[in-house]
Amino acid sequence: MAEKFISDRNLKFLMYELNDTEALLKYPRFADHSKDVFDMILETAMKMGKDIYKPLFEEMDREEPQYVNGEVKVHPKVRDVLRSAGEGGWIASTFPYDLGGQQLPFSVGVFLPTAIFGAANYSAVAYQGLTHGAAGLIVSYGTQDMKDTYLPKMITGEWQGTMALTEPQAGSSLTDLTTTGTPTDKGYYLMKGQKLFISAGDHDGCDNVIHLALGRVKDAPPGIKGISLFIIPKLRIKEDGSLEPNDVNCAGIYHKLGYKGTPITQLAFGENEDCRGWLVGEANKGLGYMFQMMNGARIDVGLAAAVISSAAYYASLEYAKERPQGRKLSGKDPLAPQVPIIEHPDIKRMLLFQKAIVEGSLSLLYQCGLYEDLEHVTEGEEKENCNLLLELLTPVAKTYPAEMGILSCSAGLQILGGYGFCEEFPLEQLYRDIRIHPIHEGTTGIQGMDLLGRKMSMKKGKAAQLYLAEVRKAIKEAEGIAELKPFAGKLTEAVALLEKVTAKQFETAASQGPEMFLSDATVYLEFFGIIAIAWQWLRQATAATKALAKNPGENDANFYSGKLAANRYFFGYELPKIQALAERLLNNDGLTVTMKNEYFED
Amino acid sequence: MAEKFISDRNLKFLMYELNDTEALLKYPRFADHSKDVFDMILETAMKMGKDIYKPLFEEMDREEPQYVNGEVKVHPKVRDVLRSAGEGGWIASTFPYDLGGQQLPFSVGVFLPTAIFGAANYSAVAYQGLTHGAAGLIVSYGTQDMKDTYLPKMITGEWQGTMALTEPQAGSSLTDLTTTGTPTDKGYYLMKGQKLFISAGDHDGCDNVIHLALGRVKDAPPGIKGISLFIIPKLRIKEDGSLEPNDVNCAGIYHKLGYKGTPITQLAFGENEDCRGWLVGEANKGLGYMFQMMNGARIDVGLAAAVISSAAYYASLEYAKERPQGRKLSGKDPLAPQVPIIEHPDIKRMLLFQKAIVEGSLSLLYQCGLYEDLEHVTEGEEKENCNLLLELLTPVAKTYPAEMGILSCSAGLQILGGYGFCEEFPLEQLYRDIRIHPIHEGTTGIQGMDLLGRKMSMKKGKAAQLYLAEVRKAIKEAEGIAELKPFAGKLTEAVALLEKVTAKQFETAASQGPEMFLSDATVYLEFFGIIAIAWQWLRQATAATKALAKNPGENDANFYSGKLAANRYFFGYELPKIQALAERLLNNDGLTVTMKNEYFED
Repeated sequence: MAEKFISDRNLKFLMYELNDTEALLKYPRFADHSKDVFDMILETAMKMGKDIYKPLFEEMDREEPQYVNGEVKVHPKVRDVLRSAGEGGWIASTFPYDLGGQQLPFSVGVFLPTAIFGAANYSAVAYQGLTHGAAGLIVSYGTQDMKDTYLPKMITGEWQGTMALTEPQAGSSLTDLTTTGTPTDKGYYLMKGQKLFISAGDHDGCDNVIHLALGRVKDAPPGIKGISLFIIPKLRIKEDGSLEPNDVNCAGIYHKLGYKGTPITQLAFGENEDCRGWLVGEANKGLGYMFQMMNGARIDVGLAAAVISSAAYYASLEYAKERPQGRKLSGKDPLAPQVPIIEHPDIKRMLLFQKAIVEGSLSLLYQCGLYEDLEHVTEGEEKENCNLLLELLTPVAKTYPAEMGILSCSAGLQILGGYGFCEEFPLEQLYRDIRIHPIHEGTTGIQGMDLLGRKMSMKKGKAAQLYLAEVRKAIKEAEGIAELKPFAGKLTEAVALLEKVTAKQFETAASQGPEMFLSDATVYLEFFGIIAIAWQWLRQATAATKALAKNPGENDANFYSGKLAANRYFFGYELPKIQALAERLLNNDGLTVTMKNEYFED
Repeated sequence: MAEKFISDRNLKFLMYELNDTEALLKYPRFADHSKDVFDMILETAMKMGKDIYKPLFEEMDREEPQYVNGEVKVHPKVRDVLRSAGEGGWIASTFPYDLGGQQLPFSVGVFLPTAIFGAANYSAVAYQGLTHGAAGLIVSYGTQDMKDTYLPKMITGEWQGTMALTEPQAGSSLTDLTTTGTPTDKGYYLMKGQKLFISAGDHDGCDNVIHLALGRVKDAPPGIKGISLFIIPKLRIKEDGSLEPNDVNCAGIYHKLGYKGTPITQLAFGENEDCRGWLVGEANKGLGYMFQMMNGARIDVGLAAAVISSAAYYASLEYAKERPQGRKLSGKDPLAPQVPIIEHPDIKRMLLFQKAIVEGSLSLLYQCGLYEDLEHVTEGEEKENCNLLLELLTPVAKTYPAEMGILSCSAGLQILGGYGFCEEFPLEQLYRDIRIHPIHEGTTGIQGMDLLGRKMSMKKGKAAQLYLAEVRKAIKEAEGIAELKPFAGKLTEAVALLEKVTAKQFETAASQGPEMFLSDATVYLEFFGIIAIAWQWLRQATAATKALAKNPGENDANFYSGKLAANRYFFGYELPKIQALAERLLNNDGLTVTMKNEYFED
């Protein structure tokens, strides 16, 4: 069984060498913390990942949740994990002190545990991640009464939080939600509706489940303008503090390809006309509120994908170093001993591919984490800029790690050959687990339309301009380093192509309307994503080159040299892919808009 | 549950419109047959696929083989399926009449059932495919006595056949095989050794297992020059015809990601010094013999991947036509009814991607099948040419469908969103099942080295020249059709790039040696494969355009229009990818050859 699943050395590189996370300490919100605190959090999370999350990685998959007599039974250790997360302060890490939190930056208090625990065991960390997200909505938009009622038990991990959006007729199309809340004169709404695919929507590893659910106040306007956010507890809290059933029923769970340790549930609200929901914030503004959680969840999904890929990378690296097979092509004496497969260029190529995807994705995600932190503590234009950059990059930071992570895990599996396909090694599970990520929290198709259809033209294109300025800043810095000039040159060309391709898409929008404009939005997202990761690799290569110039010790020198190798890999093998995508995006002939459905018949 | 898994209309197109399978009837070997016979075989296979194989698709996955007390228990219906395949003549379809066969061409007698049964249930058809391959080796290289002893029970499906190559220390490196046969004066060898990952290597759905195993005669030369082929039965046949144990023990089976219906076994020969093997053909020539079976198996693997992708394509197409979700971007009235998701360009793009991969792969594979048939019935240069084309294209026809099939099944799964990830729909299983194909019968890395390192320079490059001539023939035909000129032009450019890239690889071989030469062989294979499929799409588009010009009925018109749409898809979205690959292949900086292993440490 592979031991290593994530590199704390690399996380430190992201925190302190590539980025200046310490700079956050100057803001009053984070003023009580220090680099020592950040380091301790990293260290503690690494220890918990190894001791608590990793040992359950296989078990939670093999002993998947069961639906028995209307109840969802999960692995008995889920309760312990969730409680230990609560007790360790991980669920409320970013919340204010007065709500039981630690006022940590997202890039430390959420990024690190999500990355480390997720690399060790994604299914196990999903429970607390969802609770953090749901509780975060209450922190932001709930009344004091709601905070008092729900937060104390959520942040200890006693109560599970969920985000309940999807309905049978409304998956990607939130417009079509029909869950309805009828007002009463008692301050609550009587809820009725069904929800599907709700992660951790019910289970016996907690004492209650608090659903942050989208629905409509009765007679609300149609479409997304009539969507409201409700708190719907599984068990409602009586005056005396005791719990009673709230007519929330779990109708079943899904058996699925991977991510098996977390139950995905079907829920029914109000089958007996006795389901109470409490409106969060104003009526009809629910989608806006929920976007806070969704945006966070999208970053979390990208991060989960990146770190599942990290676990796959280290497992295949370990195997490649140990497994003897074949000989160097330059000396094929059959009597010579076999070499470890890492000596074969094709294996090294697959390892570099994984390293480039994993560390490139983590770098982009960490950048997003910092934008999120800065957005919260800065003011005025700086705040707006951070918000715009985060909004723009969220679909990319969700999708690139998810889509490329699948290929990355697949490459890891391939390195193990037949063993990769077998249960004795973690690759087959990681390959199954990661496949959910391009689907949940908005499919890749939805992310593509979000990026091209919404984000690129946001504030008259200001988000896009800010982004290009960031990329150019990185190029300029790299241009000053002789070894990196060729890479800076390639990224300069890529940026020019990005501008050309983007302009073409908006010309299409103007001349041919939205259907044609967005018909290749997924291709555009892929194109955009590769360039964004090239940007992050150039930044990493710049930091690594500078660090190498200072003659570090052997371990560090290897680490930085690895960064430069992965950078060469990315620019040599991955970045050229934008040419093919650009060719399509510049020559969209409308095939997918005009082709008749009947042509698929035969 | 999706009903359709493969298109017989498309198979007929491959047989009679794109290719002239009837032309085979002029050769004496096939003279007894007729188009009616071919049609009947297609029809029967479609019926058996639906009635026998498809109903077991899920069951054989969910009730996977178990290893109990040294025995492998498979799904109870495996025995029936194998017997019905035997009784229907499917196992011996291509064998000569005097050995119980039907002397059918491969492109009919093997291609059709492998495609159709494999699309319905790959695990179920693997048993008979392996038996066909093993029996085929005995047909080609066995003595009359061996034929009499083994074939009658193998071709009825009573006895299972296997190919037993892999050993613990020798997966991709056959050089390192150590299974040994010590000669005796009784005509047999005493065998000793272990084999791993042997498909259907033992199970209770048959009465005996006949292993076609690679090993060494004691004291044979090291390396591949000392490899011999042995028949090693699980139960050996006594003089009186009864069976007795042959000291072949199954030490266990693997639990794996997919392809679960077929057990993959670990075998031990001669633990009690009483395992008898019979040498096939001459000693030390075993690898050459086995290549017959391996080459066939590689085509079978490509075909299996293509048809698993076919099943995924039709399942996602059916879902896309039925699932309402969202609205056209051009008219987003939330009160209007939702449209089926096939109306969304991004869904159509994914369907076209699948169609292009499935039908492009099938077309290349059918082409290979015809080369195989012609190789057997022609003489002299024609025979050699067919052999060379088949040899050249085998690694491509194995790998393209396998690697792209994974992405194709993934796109199918994505179309179903959350449901794609769940067991209620077949996508998640198809996604698991197909993942074996880039691994078994030679990994993708091995295929890349085979293509670039062996096949491209075979007979001084004659295979490559023959292939280019075939592609140019297709281009020339397409150039004569106005609508296809742009595609012919693009393929002409692609061929020029292929020549340029290939020349560069051989320059590298000459100047920098084999390690650098083959360091990007996998990338070269991907590059070559895309162009090969473009060739097949142009051929299909040519046939479809000609057929459309004859004003066919509505169904046929839709079918041909679908071909043209998929051709546009392939040239618009897939062929441009060669640019990125060529850029790498023309600018290999030796990264994967020179990078130190330590750079992966951190």
